[in-house]
Amino acid sequence: MTIRHVAIIGLGLLGGSIGLAVKARSPQIVTTGYDRSAAVRAEAAARGLVGTVHDTPEAAVEGADLVILCVPVGAMEDAARAIAPGLKADAIISDVGSSKQAVAEALARALPGHTIIPAHPVAGTEQSGPQAGFATLFAGRWCIITPPEGAHAAAVETLADFWRALGSKIELMDASHHDLVLAVTSHIPHLIAYTIVGTASDLEDVTESEVIKYSAGGFRDFTRIAASDPVMWRDVFLTNKTAVLEMLGRFTEDLTALQRAIRSGDGDTLFDLFTRTRAIRRQVIEQGQDDERPDFGREHGA
Amino acid sequence: MTIRHVAIIGLGLLGGSIGLAVKARSPQIVTTGYDRSAAVRAEAAARGLVGTVHDTPEAAVEGADLVILCVPVGAMEDAARAIAPGLKADAIISDVGSSKQAVAEALARALPGHTIIPAHPVAGTEQSGPQAGFATLFAGRWCIITPPEGAHAAAVETLADFWRALGSKIELMDASHHDLVLAVTSHIPHLIAYTIVGTASDLEDVTESEVIKYSAGGFRDFTRIAASDPVMWRDVFLTNKTAVLEMLGRFTEDLTALQRAIRSGDGDTLFDLFTRTRAIRRQVIEQGQDDERPDFGREHGA
Repeated sequence: MTIRHVAIIGLGLLGGSIGLAVKARSPQIVTTGYDRSAAVRAEAAARGLVGTVHDTPEAAVEGADLVILCVPVGAMEDAARAIAPGLKADAIISDVGSSKQAVAEALARALPGHTIIPAHPVAGTEQSGPQAGFATLFAGRWCIITPPEGAHAAAVETLADFWRALGSKIELMDASHHDLVLAVTSHIPHLIAYTIVGTASDLEDVTESEVIKYSAGGFRDFTRIAASDPVMWRDVFLTNKTAVLEMLGRFTEDLTALQRAIRSGDGDTLFDLFTRTRAIRRQVIEQGQDDERPDFGREHGA
Repeated sequence: MTIRHVAIIGLGLLGGSIGLAVKARSPQIVTTGYDRSAAVRAEAAARGLVGTVHDTPEAAVEGADLVILCVPVGAMEDAARAIAPGLKADAIISDVGSSKQAVAEALARALPGHTIIPAHPVAGTEQSGPQAGFATLFAGRWCIITPPEGAHAAAVETLADFWRALGSKIELMDASHHDLVLAVTSHIPHLIAYTIVGTASDLEDVTESEVIKYSAGGFRDFTRIAASDPVMWRDVFLTNKTAVLEMLGRFTEDLTALQRAIRSGDGDTLFDLFTRTRAIRRQVIEQGQDDERPDFGREHGA
């Protein structure tokens, strides 16, 4: 199978970046796109995120070999229903959502009989919207494909090749394991960041202006993650509830143990953990998952 | 009062950066330094972190108008006792520690009768040691000075001028308020980051290798903070216990409320918080406290 035409539904950070990456790295592929917001469609056309921006979802997917849904996970089912009338019978339907069991179920309900291969490129920034995308977003990043039971190997391989061409590394995973892994590496970190930023802005004895002023001590890192798209993240927590609550329980247990260590003046427990976590950072860098420059390479003294 | 000679005790990230910043921005000031590790002293001399590296603390502070203790807060009292024999009677003694009430008490015990003006430059990276310092670390960052009751205004102003010359902005604050503010903006963020990195590496159903591989979804940000110096941070939590436990209590309450919202499928509560936190990020950037480039300006597609 060869992808000659990809349709992108939802032209925000992810959808727009896919369009730009295809243009840069797979220019032989035709791109079309749709977004339910007219303003986003206009901006997408102006930036050339896809070759043609269409005014309806059916028109956007007409003739497409691959359709990628790039909408919040809570909107996947409606988006899938909206494209149904325009789909080619043998088109591959995929997505970029961050919780995969819920999306697989939603797409299966909306598009019975179609070839559905959910996927999740583990890439993004805190920005969103059609201005936010860029062609190198996926370069060197993992794209996790979660083929449903009985998926055609050829369709999975075609989707994998598409993502490899955009610079991604591919991993296949069971949807339920994906949801557990991402709960740890992405969903809980976001939940914690949103929480601490909320806590800090609600205090009576420390003003919001002080929190912002002295944020370079660590807090500012959390504000970046806590600036992520509210709709996308609301939907992630609502659709990956079980894994998120499970991992949150483990985090809370560990935090309680540290709280006890602080209260009792148990410096050894603190020191042991703080030494162990340092080794994890080294591995993240060694495996090319983060910038090795200190402070993420932030500019100092600008 | 004019600072002609500054002595730096402890030649790690902070001490080394002060030395390099003085060389770059206040070259008329003589710098001397000491570190209790012979290896650090050798590296400090090789990098030229200070004009002269001495083999004893007394020798390093001899003739200094200003002595800055750049050691973990738990080591301040010993470091202060060690410099006592070499101090000029009118020298100003300061530090860079992240918890100010405990340091003020430790220095007052160790150096009765001396002019002690504690301070805290809110600046740093996750790296530590004599290789980690750089001259622009303090540029554009706040330095909080916490003068004790009855401190001489002239000594405070002299210290403020010293930091301003290195590029810092100055704020005066009561030590107890400082400790509360920094608990929120720095200590709790570090504690949470250490905790989640520990939790993630201890799971049975998700391997450490998976956690590292898919860390770009948010987790990797936490690994940076959790790579900070273990001794420094152990001491911070042990010395700022009251404020840290107070703020941790508020954080845990808020996290429990979000947990309940997820469990009950209350999307509005999640959406409202996630929208509110976005505004805080905007203010952090508007006030020059973080890089406005997406993803901290990390390189993509390298």
